[in-house]
Amino acid sequence: MLTKKIDHIGIAVRDASTKLSLYKNFLGLTDIHTEELSSRGIRVYMIRVGESKIELLEPMNEQSEISKFLEAKGEGIHHIAFNVQGIDQAVELAKQNGLQPLSDSPKPGAGGTKVLFLHPKTTGGVLIELVEGNH
Amino acid sequence: MLTKKIDHIGIAVRDASTKLSLYKNFLGLTDIHTEELSSRGIRVYMIRVGESKIELLEPMNEQSEISKFLEAKGEGIHHIAFNVQGIDQAVELAKQNGLQPLSDSPKPGAGGTKVLFLHPKTTGGVLIELVEGNH
Repeated sequence: MLTKKIDHIGIAVRDASTKLSLYKNFLGLTDIHTEELSSRGIRVYMIRVGESKIELLEPMNEQSEISKFLEAKGEGIHHIAFNVQGIDQAVELAKQNGLQPLSDSPKPGAGGTKVLFLHPKTTGGVLIELVEGNH
Repeated sequence: MLTKKIDHIGIAVRDASTKLSLYKNFLGLTDIHTEELSSRGIRVYMIRVGESKIELLEPMNEQSEISKFLEAKGEGIHHIAFNVQGIDQAVELAKQNGLQPLSDSPKPGAGGTKVLFLHPKTTGGVLIELVEGNH
C-alpha cells in the first residue's frame, strides 16, 4: 500500500463553537466547512491545514456515535486518517502485519471515497482510518 | 499567526520496534529517521508522510519524559504539532483567545526551530505544539 499524506485528524468535542477561536483566530485557519451527518448524529467541522484537515466531531444528540467516546475519555483526539492508494489490499495486508481491521472490506465514505478502520488495540492505542480518494 | 501545515503527530509507544511494521510494511512509509535524546530520556522515530511526520516517542528509561504519560494513559497520541509563522506573537495571541501557553516565550527546538506548547485543558483535550522553522 502507498500512503500519500495525513488525510485528517479527527477530534471529539462537546461544543465546537468554543474551540473555533483556537483554529480560526489563533492558528489562522479560515477554510472551514461544516456538515451535519444526521444518520450518525454528528456535526463535522472540516478545517483545512496544508494538505490535511482537522475534523472536529460534535454530537448532535446523546445517541450520537461520538457520545460514548466523550463520556469515556472526554474531549480529545479520536482518530488519525491516512490517505492511501491500494485500500482494496488493506484487509489482507493488515492481517499479515498483525493489525485488526474493523470491517471485512473497505466501506463507502464521504464523496465516493473508500474507508477502513484498524482496531487501536493492534496499532499502539491509535484508532487509524485509511481513506482512498479525495472528498 | 499563519499555520502552514501539520508539522507532526507525536505518538507515545512503549516499544517502537513492534510498531514499525504498521508504518513501514503496512502503510509503506520508508523515510524513517531515528534519534536518541539522552537528556530527555527518549528515542524518537521520525516517519515522513507527505508534508508531515509521525514521531514515535519511546522511553529510554523510567525517568524518561514520556514515561509518566505511558503510565497514566498507555500508548497513544501524545500531541499534535502545527508548523507556523509568527510564533513570537503566539504567547500574547494565546492569552487573548483563552489558551494557556506552557512557557512564557517560545523555546529553542531541534535544528534551530522555536517551539511553544499549549495546555490541553484550554484546547479541548489536545496537547498542541507550535513549531516555527524546519528541522
